[in-house]
Amino acid sequence: MAQLDAALARIDADQDAALKRLFALVAIPSVSTDPAYAGACLTAAEWLKGELAGIGFEAEVRPTAGHPMVVAHAKAGRPGAPHVLFYGHYDVQPPDPLDLWQTPPFEPRLAEAPTGPQLVGRGTSDDKGQLMTFVEACRALRATGPLPCDITILFEGEEESGSRSLPAFLAANKAELHADVALICDTGMLDRTTPAVTTMLRGIVTEELVIKSADRDLHSGLFGGAAVNPIHVLARIIADLHDADGRVTLPGFYDGVAELPEEIAAQWRDIGFDGAQFLKDVGLSVPAGEKDRSVLEMLWSRPTCDVNGITGGYTGKGFKTVLPAQASAKISFRLVGAQDPQQIDASFRAFVKARLPADCRVEFVAHGGSEALQLPLESQALTRARAALNDEWGKEPVLIGSGGSIPIVGAFRRDLGMESLMIGFGLEDDRIHSPNEKYELSSFHKGARSWVRILTALGAA
Amino acid sequence: MAQLDAALARIDADQDAALKRLFALVAIPSVSTDPAYAGACLTAAEWLKGELAGIGFEAEVRPTAGHPMVVAHAKAGRPGAPHVLFYGHYDVQPPDPLDLWQTPPFEPRLAEAPTGPQLVGRGTSDDKGQLMTFVEACRALRATGPLPCDITILFEGEEESGSRSLPAFLAANKAELHADVALICDTGMLDRTTPAVTTMLRGIVTEELVIKSADRDLHSGLFGGAAVNPIHVLARIIADLHDADGRVTLPGFYDGVAELPEEIAAQWRDIGFDGAQFLKDVGLSVPAGEKDRSVLEMLWSRPTCDVNGITGGYTGKGFKTVLPAQASAKISFRLVGAQDPQQIDASFRAFVKARLPADCRVEFVAHGGSEALQLPLESQALTRARAALNDEWGKEPVLIGSGGSIPIVGAFRRDLGMESLMIGFGLEDDRIHSPNEKYELSSFHKGARSWVRILTALGAA
Repeated sequence: MAQLDAALARIDADQDAALKRLFALVAIPSVSTDPAYAGACLTAAEWLKGELAGIGFEAEVRPTAGHPMVVAHAKAGRPGAPHVLFYGHYDVQPPDPLDLWQTPPFEPRLAEAPTGPQLVGRGTSDDKGQLMTFVEACRALRATGPLPCDITILFEGEEESGSRSLPAFLAANKAELHADVALICDTGMLDRTTPAVTTMLRGIVTEELVIKSADRDLHSGLFGGAAVNPIHVLARIIADLHDADGRVTLPGFYDGVAELPEEIAAQWRDIGFDGAQFLKDVGLSVPAGEKDRSVLEMLWSRPTCDVNGITGGYTGKGFKTVLPAQASAKISFRLVGAQDPQQIDASFRAFVKARLPADCRVEFVAHGGSEALQLPLESQALTRARAALNDEWGKEPVLIGSGGSIPIVGAFRRDLGMESLMIGFGLEDDRIHSPNEKYELSSFHKGARSWVRILTALGAA
Repeated sequence: MAQLDAALARIDADQDAALKRLFALVAIPSVSTDPAYAGACLTAAEWLKGELAGIGFEAEVRPTAGHPMVVAHAKAGRPGAPHVLFYGHYDVQPPDPLDLWQTPPFEPRLAEAPTGPQLVGRGTSDDKGQLMTFVEACRALRATGPLPCDITILFEGEEESGSRSLPAFLAANKAELHADVALICDTGMLDRTTPAVTTMLRGIVTEELVIKSADRDLHSGLFGGAAVNPIHVLARIIADLHDADGRVTLPGFYDGVAELPEEIAAQWRDIGFDGAQFLKDVGLSVPAGEKDRSVLEMLWSRPTCDVNGITGGYTGKGFKTVLPAQASAKISFRLVGAQDPQQIDASFRAFVKARLPADCRVEFVAHGGSEALQLPLESQALTRARAALNDEWGKEPVLIGSGGSIPIVGAFRRDLGMESLMIGFGLEDDRIHSPNEKYELSSFHKGARSWVRILTALGAA
């Protein structure tokens, strides 16, 4: 275990330089959903290629129809070593609303907090900080001896905007990307001191709808009362999507949603998850979803519908008595079990069309989707990774679900015949997708140490 | 009638120069609701002061807590002449959505159309083109002899944003502004060839509400299902505002709403107003308001509720799975009869509060309001003005209602004890408050001629 100890010591000694590297990556505003940042996405990909090449990987930036992929390979020190594929994404969510950031989102900084030092900036947690834990682990292992596994790295640049180029890229590079197991660092710990492996993921369907009526914006005094108002039509549709018990009303929505197996339900009860505290941390007190479900069920094993954005008419300062010609909303459904994204999307579109009054029409823009996933619980890779995490954190890792969607896991299974281990070091209060996103310095540091241990464990004979 | 004929001839001969003057005023982007344009509002006021001084008025720009007023006085050629107060507003609506303008909103142009030449630009109709008809009439009368009336002019700069400074200004300048009758040019004709005097105005209540929930934006995957979504809450409130018959559901909303007197109902039936064509002109076909009401009733004599703007969550390009911390809407109610703006505002606020679920709070921003108005139908001023309009247009003017709100009329009655004559030359398809706003050249030209005739008629012994 001489190399393991040396590599862990190397991580510890190299902390300041590792932080500088992460901040250099965070400073690149690689917002994938907005075409204005396409140049920054390419810059981030090139930066990662350079880092990986610098530690001995054969690294390339590969073009796609959208933002490029970074693909890198390095061989283990011995023939017959297992082959792992590590996946992360270098793109980030838009930083708005900008005025709620205490410091600029792309000027990362180290901040002291009661729970310890934090790295603040867009992408520090999701997913730049997380993916760099793996890069730093590879760096430390390379610096102290041979790699314990053959390692392929795939960094995507469209995870936050629907992963549109991913299916074609996987299909075109099956042989190159196939490995014994995929490692994904885009999830969280159970809490600050308890590591976790995520084995259950919600799926997602995302849709944008635009309700259109008159051929121009109208004056609400001169036309109001006689002309249909598309904001009213949209509000009615949104209001109709949930019943009084918090259930989604789309016909067939709950097809394929099973009750939680008692074994897992029991494990979740034992976790000691405090739903009230979870809500209190963000200023809330009452679970808002389906009646008679625990907060953890609502988040991990129940489907949802949320409007993620709405706009129509005059939204600037002051008042404008306009009767707008259109109103639009972005809506997402989180899926569980065997819910079918296509069927739910079709049901949603029919639901909207059935509620259109005279003189209104609707346009839809699909923004991608994926089915829900349950990963195998008995693999050797999972067993070894759990032991390695226990070694680092001094605590048995918990097998958890995630309310978020990580479409790559389904794609790896479906397109490459490969299961994934989802191990991440984010915390629930990391404010990912929100202003003042942060990553704990301990997540970054002990995350890198965890990967050193996991790679060593996976590579053991 | 030598001066009348000379002044009319002068209007005809001076058309090109008059158009240049109007375009100079339209080119000033005096958007009152947005503080970014405060400088432009002052520029517009100064420009008008200069014009009025140039034709012999004692003109001043008077500061207020908001945008300034322009006040000007000129005496008639004989003692004992009647005194009229002319009111217009130099501020305009915001030009957005900018991308729907065929040419920039503040670069006015003359365009040929099947119905004749049009002046295109923000404010050409509402209200810069209209107020300049009166200024040009004064110019022509001054150029050809003495004024037939004592004339005071009041130009406001906050009409499109709630007229917040007006009450205090009227109160502080009662004696200076009081006249025998007020003339207001901010309304329309019945159609291209039929002049109108507006004698019935809807009132208005405007409110902005912001629904707030969590203390930050959340990730809809990690919190969706458990955390309340303020967009859903807002949509439910908006959906609840109307019942299935198109009636507003606020308790007490219809208190003070009387059925139309049969005399006026008959007049409106005789007008030959084509509700289907009115809607067809803007791409609609079916009246969307209260069941069993004619389009003209919906517009002129029935109260309404319209959402004028809504926003929440991510509204940029692409998709962002945010569960927002707040959502907001701007809502206006058009009032008729004896509806009480204060009572309706209170009812609305109670209605919203009664629908707030746990963990949600609401903030309101009132944007002003006014009661509905019925003007006297038997005054000598109205009789003379109708005859003058008949002389110009060769057609008896119609007495109409207006769906829009012109709070100044109520303020003149209440604060200055003065009734108003509302005579304007706008057309229903002028696209006021919308992209590509226009004013017909014939409205501008014959409007100025109309004021020459009206002032002459009012000033006759």
